[in-house]
Amino acid sequence: MNNIPSNEAKISAQAVAAFANTPNPRLRQVVQSLVRHLHAFASEVELTEDEWLEGIRFLTDTGKTCDGTVRQEFILLSDVIGLSMLVDAINHRACESATETTVFGPFYIAGMPERGHGENMAFTPGEPALVQGRVLDAAGEPIANAVLDVWQTAENGMYSGQDPEQPLTNLRGRYRTDAEGRFAIRTTLPVSYPIPTDGPVGRLLQASDRHPWRPAHLHFMVMAPGQRTLVTHLFNHDDPYLDSDVVFGVKDSLKVVYQPCQANHPLAAPFGFDGSFRLASYDFVLEREA
Amino acid sequence: MNNIPSNEAKISAQAVAAFANTPNPRLRQVVQSLVRHLHAFASEVELTEDEWLEGIRFLTDTGKTCDGTVRQEFILLSDVIGLSMLVDAINHRACESATETTVFGPFYIAGMPERGHGENMAFTPGEPALVQGRVLDAAGEPIANAVLDVWQTAENGMYSGQDPEQPLTNLRGRYRTDAEGRFAIRTTLPVSYPIPTDGPVGRLLQASDRHPWRPAHLHFMVMAPGQRTLVTHLFNHDDPYLDSDVVFGVKDSLKVVYQPCQANHPLAAPFGFDGSFRLASYDFVLEREA
Ligand SMILES: [Fe+2]
Ligand SMILES: [Fe+2]
Repeated sequence: MNNIPSNEAKISAQAVAAFANTPNPRLRQVVQSLVRHLHAFASEVELTEDEWLEGIRFLTDTGKTCDGTVRQEFILLSDVIGLSMLVDAINHRACESATETTVFGPFYIAGMPERGHGENMAFTPGEPALVQGRVLDAAGEPIANAVLDVWQTAENGMYSGQDPEQPLTNLRGRYRTDAEGRFAIRTTLPVSYPIPTDGPVGRLLQASDRHPWRPAHLHFMVMAPGQRTLVTHLFNHDDPYLDSDVVFGVKDSLKVVYQPCQANHPLAAPFGFDGSFRLASYDFVLEREA
Repeated sequence: MNNIPSNEAKISAQAVAAFANTPNPRLRQVVQSLVRHLHAFASEVELTEDEWLEGIRFLTDTGKTCDGTVRQEFILLSDVIGLSMLVDAINHRACESATETTVFGPFYIAGMPERGHGENMAFTPGEPALVQGRVLDAAGEPIANAVLDVWQTAENGMYSGQDPEQPLTNLRGRYRTDAEGRFAIRTTLPVSYPIPTDGPVGRLLQASDRHPWRPAHLHFMVMAPGQRTLVTHLFNHDDPYLDSDVVFGVKDSLKVVYQPCQANHPLAAPFGFDGSFRLASYDFVLEREA
C-alpha cells in the first residue's frame, strides 16, 4: 500500500460524497462502494493516463462486441474475472440441501420450444445421449410439471445463435417433468468449448496467458411454482478442463458420468436409440422460494 | 465490513490467481488489483443477481452510446465518478510551477484547422471574446511556436460534433504562439452546459439526484517540443457551477475573469472588434518532458 497524497484522497472523498443524496439508499450504498473501490484501485496501482485510456477503449470495445443476442461480452468479462461466480455464491448462501448453482453465462436464448419427454433436441451430429432424472423439492418430494430450460453447444463448440449453420432451436428446449417429477432429454454428448476469443475478453485472456476453455457441460434453468429458480450446469465428469474452467464455474456436486450404453440397454428402445448411446442421470433439488 | 464466507473468499482468490501468469508484470499488477477491488466491492455490498444484471446492462448501454466521435460515454462515466480527475492528479504530482491540469473530457476532435493569431473560431452567435496570453517554460521563458489546441461549446451548450447545426470546425482550432510566446484566440464567451443526459450516465446522475452541469470553460491542449503536453481548461471565474462541477474538474488556479471591454479598448481594433467584447488573459506554464 502506498500513501495516498492528500489532494488525491480529497478527490476520492468528493466523488463518493457526490452520491450522498441518492434517494434510494441501496443504490447509494452500491454506487458509493463501487466508486470507493475503483478509486482505491487507481490509487493502489497509480494508474497512468495511457492505462486509463486503454481501459476506456477496452470497455468501449466490449460494449461494441455485444450484439444483443448471444454475444454478451460484458457477461463474458464478468465470468472470466470470477465476478459472476462470486455473485452466484453471495446469493446462494445456506441452502445445503438444494442443487448447487453456477454461472448463467451469455448464451441463453429465451422462448425456445417446449419439447416432449425424451424428445431429441439435437439437429446436428454428435454422440447420442440421454440425460434423465427427477426434480425434487427440499423435502425430497418429486415436483410434477417443473420446467427445465436447457442449452448446450453443438459438437463444433458453438451455441445456436453463434453459428449460422445451426437452426436457432438446435440443442435448446424446454422440458417438463411428469407426474413423478421425471424428465428425459435426448441430446448429444456435451463437448468442451472455448469462449469467444475474437473480442476484448479473448485479448485479455491471451495477454494473461490463460486458455479460453470451458469443460463440457449442459446448462439448466429449472423452474417450478413456489420454488426458487435454479440456474446450473451438469459437467462431464472426465473433462480435461474441469480444474481450469475459464469462468470458474465447476463444482464437484455438478459432475455427472455419461455411461456408455449399448442398443440392448432397457432405455434404448423407449427413447428410440438404435445404437450405442450415453446415459447421464441427475436429480435436481430445488429450494422453496423465499 | 462483513465477514466474507470462506467459499466466497476462495472464489476471489482463484480469480486473482488466474492472472498470475500474465507475462507483462505491469498488466499483471493492474489486472490483479482491479479484480481484487471489484470482488471486494461485490462482497462488501453483497451484490444481488438483479443488481449484477443491472450493472451488465448499464455497461452495455454505455458501450452502445459511444458513437466513435464526440459521444464517449465511458469517458463521461469516468468523469462523473471522479476517476478521471484522480488519474489526472496521480499523473501530475510534484510539478508546482506548471499550470494545473484538468480532465480531457470526451469532446475533443483531432485535426482541427490551424488558425492565425487572433483569428475568430466562432461561427455561431455569442458574446465576442478575446483570450490571450503567453506560453512559458518552467523558468518563465516564453516558448515560441507552441501549439494550443482549443475547443468549447457554442452558446447552446453543445460542441460541434454533438450538434448538426454547427460546422465541425466551429469553436475549435489550433493556435500557435509567436516569437514572444504570445497567443490570441477570438471566440465567444464560454457558457455552462449540461453533459449529455440522454444516456446511461445521465440516468445515473438523475438516480443520484446530481445535476449534470459543468461551469463555463474553454479547453486547452498545449504542446511544445521538449515540454510535457498540458491538458487543461480555463474556467469563467463567476460561474454558478464552479463549486459543483459534475466532473470535479475545477481548480482555483484555472479561473479567469472575462473583463467587459468597450469598442475603444486598445485591443479592439487590432483584433477587429467593432463593439464591446470580453477579454481574458492567462499565461500557461509548461514543464519539461520527463
Ligand atoms: Fe456454456
Ligand atoms: Fe467541456
